[in-house]
Amino acid sequence: MASGSEVEKLHSRIRELEEELRRVRSTQDTHRSKIDKMSAEVVDSNPYSRLMALKRMGIVEDYEKIRSYTVAVVGVGGVGSVTAEMLTRCGIGKLLLFDYDKVELANMNRLFFQPHQAGLSKVEAAEHTLRNINPDVQFEVHNYNITTMDNFQHFMDRISKGGLKEGEPVDLVLSCVDNFEARMAINTACNELEQIWMESGVSENAVSGHIQLVKPGETACFACAPPLVVAANIDEKTLKRAGVCAASLPTTMGVVAGILVQNVLKYLLNFGTVSFYLGYNAMQDYFPTMSMKPNPSCSDRYCVQRQAEFKLKEAAQPKPEVVVEEEKPVVHEENNWGIELVSEVSEEELKEASGPVPVLPEGITVAYTIPVTKPTSGVTVEDSEQSLEELMAQMKNM
Amino acid sequence: MASGSEVEKLHSRIRELEEELRRVRSTQDTHRSKIDKMSAEVVDSNPYSRLMALKRMGIVEDYEKIRSYTVAVVGVGGVGSVTAEMLTRCGIGKLLLFDYDKVELANMNRLFFQPHQAGLSKVEAAEHTLRNINPDVQFEVHNYNITTMDNFQHFMDRISKGGLKEGEPVDLVLSCVDNFEARMAINTACNELEQIWMESGVSENAVSGHIQLVKPGETACFACAPPLVVAANIDEKTLKRAGVCAASLPTTMGVVAGILVQNVLKYLLNFGTVSFYLGYNAMQDYFPTMSMKPNPSCSDRYCVQRQAEFKLKEAAQPKPEVVVEEEKPVVHEENNWGIELVSEVSEEELKEASGPVPVLPEGITVAYTIPVTKPTSGVTVEDSEQSLEELMAQMKNM
Repeated sequence: MASGSEVEKLHSRIRELEEELRRVRSTQDTHRSKIDKMSAEVVDSNPYSRLMALKRMGIVEDYEKIRSYTVAVVGVGGVGSVTAEMLTRCGIGKLLLFDYDKVELANMNRLFFQPHQAGLSKVEAAEHTLRNINPDVQFEVHNYNITTMDNFQHFMDRISKGGLKEGEPVDLVLSCVDNFEARMAINTACNELEQIWMESGVSENAVSGHIQLVKPGETACFACAPPLVVAANIDEKTLKRAGVCAASLPTTMGVVAGILVQNVLKYLLNFGTVSFYLGYNAMQDYFPTMSMKPNPSCSDRYCVQRQAEFKLKEAAQPKPEVVVEEEKPVVHEENNWGIELVSEVSEEELKEASGPVPVLPEGITVAYTIPVTKPTSGVTVEDSEQSLEELMAQMKNM
Repeated sequence: MASGSEVEKLHSRIRELEEELRRVRSTQDTHRSKIDKMSAEVVDSNPYSRLMALKRMGIVEDYEKIRSYTVAVVGVGGVGSVTAEMLTRCGIGKLLLFDYDKVELANMNRLFFQPHQAGLSKVEAAEHTLRNINPDVQFEVHNYNITTMDNFQHFMDRISKGGLKEGEPVDLVLSCVDNFEARMAINTACNELEQIWMESGVSENAVSGHIQLVKPGETACFACAPPLVVAANIDEKTLKRAGVCAASLPTTMGVVAGILVQNVLKYLLNFGTVSFYLGYNAMQDYFPTMSMKPNPSCSDRYCVQRQAEFKLKEAAQPKPEVVVEEEKPVVHEENNWGIELVSEVSEEELKEASGPVPVLPEGITVAYTIPVTKPTSGVTVEDSEQSLEELMAQMKNM
């Protein structure tokens, strides 16, 4: 039996602890409440005031439209996590995140993740942080490797049905992965689904990177030609090889995430000039741009099919009488900065490679060349009868 | 009186609450312990492995040297906060942060701050987050406006004595402020202290920005000529005017912070080419570079003094027989990309401006012109006897 004062002490201690728990929790999880409609009101409490100001500044016509879009981010590492955070802070409608990695202290040299998240899955940790930052965004996270057969099917399913309105496709897929196999899986999926996507990459030595917009059938896909990288980089396939530890910098990854999401905003909200390829050479602060047509003999049969469809669509369209964007100077559709065309890859290597030899502006080279292992020339949609399984198996052997 | 089982229930509740409090606290503040010596060991638990890999990749000769440097960041907003985070994650020795603002929900469209920090001072909130990210970094924060007279004196004092070893100057000052007055205060301080600094800025319409390296006496200071901005921007002085709400984007600010800290790393760790001026035009993904000599008739007497000292130093130096960096191609010391020189400012405006007319590469213009209000030509160190007070008063009227 206890005295009344002893019991009172225990009750008082419970009240104390409850109060402290509330306080500690509140500093951790006090996120703002949801906001139904974006407002342009200029008050300190409005998280959208500086974004809605883009309308008043004459940059974006309809900023609120951002809430109607869904973006899938594949790879939530140094580039993908910052990409997801930028989109979240911009008020994107829905984000799908794909990654199978765990947060490690070794990731702390890049932005976004914090030491206390070490051990958590990247998608889980990211979702928690991002929800606190902006509860208006819808999140759907998948903690798996998209390159295994089952996961790849599920990934395709979510890309084609995981939009804001379930059953509708996402608006854009962003590749923020760090290996060739995952990039090729995204390429395969997007060619089949006719899904526009953007690719991003950072070199193993941490001082260059790039972004690339891929429109199936209209621009070169990842199987059309060897991926383009900035400057003389080391073979990307070594990235995840045992014993090799790639260097990375928060600066380079922050810049690449920034130019990637900027390109996303320009593409979705229809302002400025969307870049097809933008490189970043950090050693010399050089930012080459270019674009590349698809390869008619691409080994991806869906790419070849999309090319045929695109040609039909183009042919069917009446010649445009008024070019809508005629007042905007197009800076990088052609190489009009007087940049010399100097390829850093030998003639022999380029001859060995499948696909046409791309015209490479100074500072851009191919990551590696893909040896021609089968006859690819003359392949048409009709006579290319490879199954997805065969393509996947083929990719794994690359 | 209470029964034994009731008391046991209360004790059990207390244990429960204590356990929960420990758990919640641990997810909030579990930061890693300090690390005495940077290691290149490739293990998941090493937060420096990917940075030390820069040595193995042949990019940086002595990465550990970063721990010996102190950087002051003035302005901890959209650019400054990300700048501080990048430097913290890179393992900088010491950071000094200056800002007088509070975190608001209206800042949530930029990276770094989180909604639960609304109401806290920016430097206090930043220090808490950054300490958790990297406890190896030393922090010194000042929650004040550097442009008031007392604070300016204290600011000068900390720039000249706040290095890693108390009494020694900082290695670099970074201007991440959003108004003209604060930039001029930094300029005045750095000219007097012969302190190398870098400036950064983002336009009011959120779609352009720039960074600039200022070496007193060697390159143009902020009083030498009107500040350079990218493309046709609105007068920067309107930025903080009542009723005007500038637009901002996490993308543009992330890119500017990224190229700023990249320039800092290149400057401190001696790799790549340090940029004197790098612009970012987000609408067209155009990144102009340039450099500018100081104005012999600069209104800042310390700038004129530094110019004289620099000339003497240059004259005294023997002609370099071996250029150390001869193997590295210099990309932007001169305009060697064939960029046309097109000024967007009228001849009349430039004649009205004090200082020499800068040669402006395409895409760069002056933020505004400073009308000539007093005879500035022919001013030498000797006959310019303006006190700091007079300079400050003069600045306030600009």
